[in-house]
Amino acid sequence: MAIVDVTVIPVGTGGPSVSTYVAEIQQVLENYGDKISFKLTPMSTIIEGELPVLFEVIQAIHEAPFKSGIKRVTTNIRIDDRRDKSVQMDDKVEAVTRKLNQAK
Amino acid sequence: MAIVDVTVIPVGTGGPSVSTYVAEIQQVLENYGDKISFKLTPMSTIIEGELPVLFEVIQAIHEAPFKSGIKRVTTNIRIDDRRDKSVQMDDKVEAVTRKLNQAK
Amino acid sequence: MAIVDVTVIPVGTGGPSVSTYVAEIQQVLENYGDKISFKLTPMSTIIEGELPVLFEVIQAIHEAPFKSGIKRVTTNIRIDDRRDKSVQMDDKVEAVTRKLNQAK
Amino acid sequence: MAIVDVTVIPVGTGGPSVSTYVAEIQQVLENYGDKISFKLTPMSTIIEGELPVLFEVIQAIHEAPFKSGIKRVTTNIRIDDRRDKSVQMDDKVEAVTRKLNQAK
Repeated sequence: MAIVDVTVIPVGTGGPSVSTYVAEIQQVLENYGDKISFKLTPMSTIIEGELPVLFEVIQAIHEAPFKSGIKRVTTNIRIDDRRDKSVQMDDKVEAVTRKLNQAK
Repeated sequence: MAIVDVTVIPVGTGGPSVSTYVAEIQQVLENYGDKISFKLTPMSTIIEGELPVLFEVIQAIHEAPFKSGIKRVTTNIRIDDRRDKSVQMDDKVEAVTRKLNQAK
Repeated sequence: MAIVDVTVIPVGTGGPSVSTYVAEIQQVLENYGDKISFKLTPMSTIIEGELPVLFEVIQAIHEAPFKSGIKRVTTNIRIDDRRDKSVQMDDKVEAVTRKLNQAK
Repeated sequence: MAIVDVTVIPVGTGGPSVSTYVAEIQQVLENYGDKISFKLTPMSTIIEGELPVLFEVIQAIHEAPFKSGIKRVTTNIRIDDRRDKSVQMDDKVEAVTRKLNQAK
């Protein structure tokens, strides 16, 4: 399992709002709901799953704005892939919180 | 107000865990608590505040691993700065959720 | 054709240098030499090709440090995909240089 | 000295081309020419200098599209900051090329 953090930015939208495109992307993600976990943050969508599935999903959400007529899309992806132990999304935040509390 | 999404990756840690460094960064952020809002996600820290303050804060958290003896740090930052209207962290997620519900 | 800009950061290397890993990645890229163009910059590798090939290549180079014993890899990818006209790597720099010269 | 890799994406441009904005940013960079080295690549601008200067420069180029009437800007920054030895832009590419040649 790996975790990715993705932002898809449609270029040439004619206005500053992109929430319509982000909503379309959430719908694409819901179609993969049995294979991935995902979570919308104020800055990106975080997705957890097997790496080959994640690459397939990233390609699908990168494609979404083109289907709505956008001519250029810039997508930014961070992959975090740890293989010495199985780490899930929430484990990462908990590990930090635990260390923070120990330090206090 | 702008929103930034920051990951600070210490290079040469000698092992795959970096949660100790992330916890130190959260402590640095708490010192700026009256000027910023921040939130740890499984992939980054999202910080909201006035842009010049955010740049000061980013510099401070990028510096943290060096103080713990790390010799190389790679920091990745996404800035989202919208000036036609005031948008806060939670507004962004709500705008998408509203559009998603309308579409259903 | 799309252009991607990729950095693969091995976590837990035991020292600040990562050039050995970057060299291994360049060798992986050379195996795809008939399908892609690529260029090493001081901060990343820029790769041009058809999008599905690029995703295959990104997965291959993300995998490389694990084969050398690294237990955690963080990969950062920027995709620039423009479909109203065919744009190649060098065209983008030239378009900016032309506008810069016009402005002078 | 640190090296940063910056992309400034204006949102809501009304079309897929952003080269005018990138050219404006290059002009801003030229004003800092005595304090930094910089280089335009097909995907970003790479800038080398002292870290506090780099933060000042990033803020200046992030500001540029707003001066041209854009209402939202998303900027993506990678910082590579190594302090065990002085490394310059070209050294990084040379270190990799040297290792590649040794391996052949």
